Amino acid sequence: MATVTATAVKAEKQMERTFSGIPGLDEILFGGFPKNNLVVISGDPGSGKTCMCLEFLYMGATKYNENGVYVSLEESEDEIFRTAEGFGWDFKKLVSEGKMMIISIELYDFDKLKNTVEDAVSRIHARRLVIDPGVVFRLYFDRELDARKRLLSLGRMLKKIGCTAIITNEISLDKTSSLFGLEEYVADGVILLYHTQLEQRFVRSVGILKMRGTKISEKLHPIAITKQGIKILAKHELFEEAE
Amino acid sequence: MATVTATAVKAEKQMERTFSGIPGLDEILFGGFPKNNLVVISGDPGSGKTCMCLEFLYMGATKYNENGVYVSLEESEDEIFRTAEGFGWDFKKLVSEGKMMIISIELYDFDKLKNTVEDAVSRIHARRLVIDPGVVFRLYFDRELDARKRLLSLGRMLKKIGCTAIITNEISLDKTSSLFGLEEYVADGVILLYHTQLEQRFVRSVGILKMRGTKISEKLHPIAITKQGIKILAKHELFEEAE
Amino acid sequence: MATVTATAVKAEKQMERTFSGIPGLDEILFGGFPKNNLVVISGDPGSGKTCMCLEFLYMGATKYNENGVYVSLEESEDEIFRTAEGFGWDFKKLVSEGKMMIISIELYDFDKLKNTVEDAVSRIHARRLVIDPGVVFRLYFDRELDARKRLLSLGRMLKKIGCTAIITNEISLDKTSSLFGLEEYVADGVILLYHTQLEQRFVRSVGILKMRGTKISEKLHPIAITKQGIKILAKHELFEEAE
Amino acid sequence: MATVTATAVKAEKQMERTFSGIPGLDEILFGGFPKNNLVVISGDPGSGKTCMCLEFLYMGATKYNENGVYVSLEESEDEIFRTAEGFGWDFKKLVSEGKMMIISIELYDFDKLKNTVEDAVSRIHARRLVIDPGVVFRLYFDRELDARKRLLSLGRMLKKIGCTAIITNEISLDKTSSLFGLEEYVADGVILLYHTQLEQRFVRSVGILKMRGTKISEKLHPIAITKQGIKILAKHELFEEAE
Amino acid sequence: MATVTATAVKAEKQMERTFSGIPGLDEILFGGFPKNNLVVISGDPGSGKTCMCLEFLYMGATKYNENGVYVSLEESEDEIFRTAEGFGWDFKKLVSEGKMMIISIELYDFDKLKNTVEDAVSRIHARRLVIDPGVVFRLYFDRELDARKRLLSLGRMLKKIGCTAIITNEISLDKTSSLFGLEEYVADGVILLYHTQLEQRFVRSVGILKMRGTKISEKLHPIAITKQGIKILAKHELFEEAE
Amino acid sequence: MATVTATAVKAEKQMERTFSGIPGLDEILFGGFPKNNLVVISGDPGSGKTCMCLEFLYMGATKYNENGVYVSLEESEDEIFRTAEGFGWDFKKLVSEGKMMIISIELYDFDKLKNTVEDAVSRIHARRLVIDPGVVFRLYFDRELDARKRLLSLGRMLKKIGCTAIITNEISLDKTSSLFGLEEYVADGVILLYHTQLEQRFVRSVGILKMRGTKISEKLHPIAITKQGIKILAKHELFEEAE
Repeated sequence: MATVTATAVKAEKQMERTFSGIPGLDEILFGGFPKNNLVVISGDPGSGKTCMCLEFLYMGATKYNENGVYVSLEESEDEIFRTAEGFGWDFKKLVSEGKMMIISIELYDFDKLKNTVEDAVSRIHARRLVIDPGVVFRLYFDRELDARKRLLSLGRMLKKIGCTAIITNEISLDKTSSLFGLEEYVADGVILLYHTQLEQRFVRSVGILKMRGTKISEKLHPIAITKQGIKILAKHELFEEAE
Repeated sequence: MATVTATAVKAEKQMERTFSGIPGLDEILFGGFPKNNLVVISGDPGSGKTCMCLEFLYMGATKYNENGVYVSLEESEDEIFRTAEGFGWDFKKLVSEGKMMIISIELYDFDKLKNTVEDAVSRIHARRLVIDPGVVFRLYFDRELDARKRLLSLGRMLKKIGCTAIITNEISLDKTSSLFGLEEYVADGVILLYHTQLEQRFVRSVGILKMRGTKISEKLHPIAITKQGIKILAKHELFEEAE
Repeated sequence: MATVTATAVKAEKQMERTFSGIPGLDEILFGGFPKNNLVVISGDPGSGKTCMCLEFLYMGATKYNENGVYVSLEESEDEIFRTAEGFGWDFKKLVSEGKMMIISIELYDFDKLKNTVEDAVSRIHARRLVIDPGVVFRLYFDRELDARKRLLSLGRMLKKIGCTAIITNEISLDKTSSLFGLEEYVADGVILLYHTQLEQRFVRSVGILKMRGTKISEKLHPIAITKQGIKILAKHELFEEAE
Repeated sequence: MATVTATAVKAEKQMERTFSGIPGLDEILFGGFPKNNLVVISGDPGSGKTCMCLEFLYMGATKYNENGVYVSLEESEDEIFRTAEGFGWDFKKLVSEGKMMIISIELYDFDKLKNTVEDAVSRIHARRLVIDPGVVFRLYFDRELDARKRLLSLGRMLKKIGCTAIITNEISLDKTSSLFGLEEYVADGVILLYHTQLEQRFVRSVGILKMRGTKISEKLHPIAITKQGIKILAKHELFEEAE
Repeated sequence: MATVTATAVKAEKQMERTFSGIPGLDEILFGGFPKNNLVVISGDPGSGKTCMCLEFLYMGATKYNENGVYVSLEESEDEIFRTAEGFGWDFKKLVSEGKMMIISIELYDFDKLKNTVEDAVSRIHARRLVIDPGVVFRLYFDRELDARKRLLSLGRMLKKIGCTAIITNEISLDKTSSLFGLEEYVADGVILLYHTQLEQRFVRSVGILKMRGTKISEKLHPIAITKQGIKILAKHELFEEAE
Repeated sequence: MATVTATAVKAEKQMERTFSGIPGLDEILFGGFPKNNLVVISGDPGSGKTCMCLEFLYMGATKYNENGVYVSLEESEDEIFRTAEGFGWDFKKLVSEGKMMIISIELYDFDKLKNTVEDAVSRIHARRLVIDPGVVFRLYFDRELDARKRLLSLGRMLKKIGCTAIITNEISLDKTSSLFGLEEYVADGVILLYHTQLEQRFVRSVGILKMRGTKISEKLHPIAITKQGIKILAKHELFEEAE
């Protein structure tokens, strides 16, 4: 019943953190992402992955004075502008002010991608990075070992240049292939975003599977997605009302 | 218990919408499809996929003055005429009036398909598009990544030329291969049409899994298919009566 | 509780129908198969697939004056004669009267099969066709897309020459590979014949999964197989007695 | 509660039958195997498949004056002699009297096998045949379609030469690959022999999945394997005592 | 409730037996392994497979005056000495006395393995053989049919030279691949050793799936592994205490 | 209810042990790892695998005067330093004092890895070894048999040079591929670290699946991961509180 207390949050705060600024998320992370962590967000379709990524960058640029790079492996800059606009976030302005950079790039050469990311991050002194959708890595490499090595090398580079990074992943409802794949093992942290069908309705929730360097909430918390973005009900548990 | 209220519907209406005109559907979408969205309808056999597609185009052409293109990857123009006739929709007339175009084409060259679609849409200034059955994409491409890229490029082109599009998908009862496949992740919206066996009867229902740019109903709603088309009982939940 | 009423049956009768003549089946189809439909019967081993096919042809030839062609991809003419005899149906006589034609052919060239079928149908002006067992299509083609295209082209030809057709399919108890495969999606109608083990006994039932162009019963009905053929208990539900 | 009655057994007896002579089996088949049927016995390890096959041949040779051929694809003549001896059946004597023939042959050429079987059957005018273990067919052919065709051609030959035949099959506990495989669909009859673990014990039972040309019991019956062979408790149901 | 009685054990004793000497095992086998049987022990990790094999050989050499050969496909002679020592069994002494032979050999040539085994058995006139771990056979051969044939030929040779043999197998928790594989079908007997997780603890049990030539207990019996070896509680059922 | 008692722990202590020093672990192992055992730790993402490995080495070097080698197949020395620091363990100092060695090496040549490990162990006279993550072995070798042989040869070398070793493994939530793979069968011991979702929260627990040479706790024990490392609640069972 008692969930995450303010004291616990304080107790963990001595280590360097990257505040997501997403309502409730820093609370269930006991103070935000440990700095320079590579975090995988694994989510169902429609669970709020992109929203969380955009909000992470937006809050960084507007509230914490941390620039961000958004690497889109499938969408154009315009599409990202539009999606952000839907939540009232003016990414175009942030880009023009040099606080944000959006890279729309297809994955056909991993080393080129890595260099592009490194350049972009250093050009605007970014402290936050998003790569979306990360599932493309798994599709791109034929051998799991290869995808794993490249992801590791990417993560190492990001740590070196001082970026807290989020890579999105798609939960395949096909549980037999890989609910938790290489990304979840290789990453420093894993956030699970569920959009599951419970009898006659769809329910959204979040759970922190792991996060190196910090205590985490061990509960599933309900999520609300509104026109202002994603909101985690850190003080509630998923089935609280039902009990 | 309270479902979608008129107020909520109004509140969402400031963004541009494509009204499906299908009874109940716009209501559970809080005002219709966000304009230019690429929507996947994933459905069981006999769940009403084709009916919903035809009705979407028919209502566009007759009620909202929006022309439509129906791209059939497996059926002839005549077959589509006949199926529509079964619901009392005179597609032949709409075609002759230049409000509708039916393209029956086999998928053997993706770029050619894309060009054909683009030409047709611009020729009759269509604002609605249906591609049926979309599962052919998955069967056509050997690598998932390839299918994904092509679908993305198709969706981008449709957005550019200003079309709200529906692509149908088949839910494989084989849950191990891909209940939600690439289409569900790549699309802006996903509508699930179920035709499931509950003990001794078959039941039809609809759920909106995701829809970028709008609030959605988070419930499973019962469906009725009559001689006048598909009808979503937006004010009811699937198991309401049973409880 | 109320099942299919006579009024409902009448209400649907304005469209052209092919009466199966199988006790109960036309009733749960609200008046028989819509004319020229391609129907897949998917059934368990021992569920009565072959019996239903034979009865469909026999009733056509003897009661509705509609000739029929039986294409057997695995059995000889003699074997089919014998099986029909077991139900008291004299197929030999029907063949000699030119009301029936039995083609025993191995599937090694799809186009040849198609031509043979077309020839046979036109020679005796058949209005009914059975291809059994249809699972051979799936085994014959390596790519699902190929099987799908061929089946579509076969169905189109049958519609053109005015035949209502049944293709049998085998439900693999291996639910992971394809309970509903391409046949169920491509066909106009799907009849499910179950022969399932319920604790200590085997139970037979039928359900109509879909049927383009007609209203259908949405229940599972019990089946009896007697020496006079298959009989669907249209007024009962499967678990009626048990409750 | 009432199971198979004597009247029912009589009522079915007008068609030609091959009496198994196995206690209880002819009763649940309403009078024995329809003559010349190709029957698959699908069973778990230790469920009594081999015992049932041996008893079928032994009863034929000693009680019904019908000679039999046992084709072993994996065991030597001596091994079969020994196994039969364990049940008190003197196969050596039957072989020396020309009432039985045991062929131990490896499957490396299907046509050769077929010829060998045909020769043996005609040499001793056999009316019963066993091929054990039939699973070897599936392992031998790479394409399911090939195995299917060969099995069909074998069955056709056996019918022509007037043999009632049993082919054994192994139920793979791996339900995902093929509980009911091609054998069950191709065969005229299927007998299921279960040896299943129910909490803390192993239980044996038999069910007739299908049998062309005869009525069958639709129940699961318990089995006892004693030193005198297999015995089906035709008057009981599997879970009778438990209820 | 009544389990295996002394009378029953006596009643079965007229056939030649190989006494395992393992407490409780001969009892649930109604007098030991039928002589020259090829027995597969299929077990979970940590279920006691190796312990049972070692005890089988140790008891043979020290109590029943039957020499034994241990063929290890993965471990060295020293490792086997050590493992046996852990149970207080001095295999080194038995080897030096010519009552035991340990062969540590990698499987790279099946015929060579067979010859080596045959030589060893005849050199010390062994009556007992263990091959451990047998799973290597399945990994070694690409085609299941090949593994099956070789295992059969091995079993035949062992019968010829008069050995009762145990081959260990690993139960893959991956139920989809092969809980009961070829080994279980090909062998004369199958012993299942479970080490399963029941809620918050691990439980050990044994069941005899099949054993040609003898009556068997049809229950799951609990197992205790102590410093003196494995012990089967033949008079108890697995869930006796819990009920 | 009574769990592991001090007496039992003493009773087992006569054999040589490697004390993990991890609170609770030696207790549920009845005195620590049997010396020179090769132990696999199989765990979910976020279950504490790395923490347990680091603590095992740290306690060895600081409390039991046993040097240790950490072979990282994916992370750099610096990353390991940082992770250890998070628990207050100064690995840098231990390395500088020659009590610890960290080898960061990619697996591209198994023999080279083996030699490197052997050299490192002998150079600092290490008695403890960790290889992390061991899953790389399975990904590296195409044939399971090859991975199995190499792992065996590695384990043999480690025993020869007198090292107690831990190899980490990842539990794939995809139960169909290999919950217990070759590592669990080949290893002397297996520790399972679970991080499982129970309704609305994540729960950590540990179970010992097997451990050659010692008695083990047969229960699932809860785990706490704090800033001081991993702690096993040896006196508790997982669901104790809930009951």
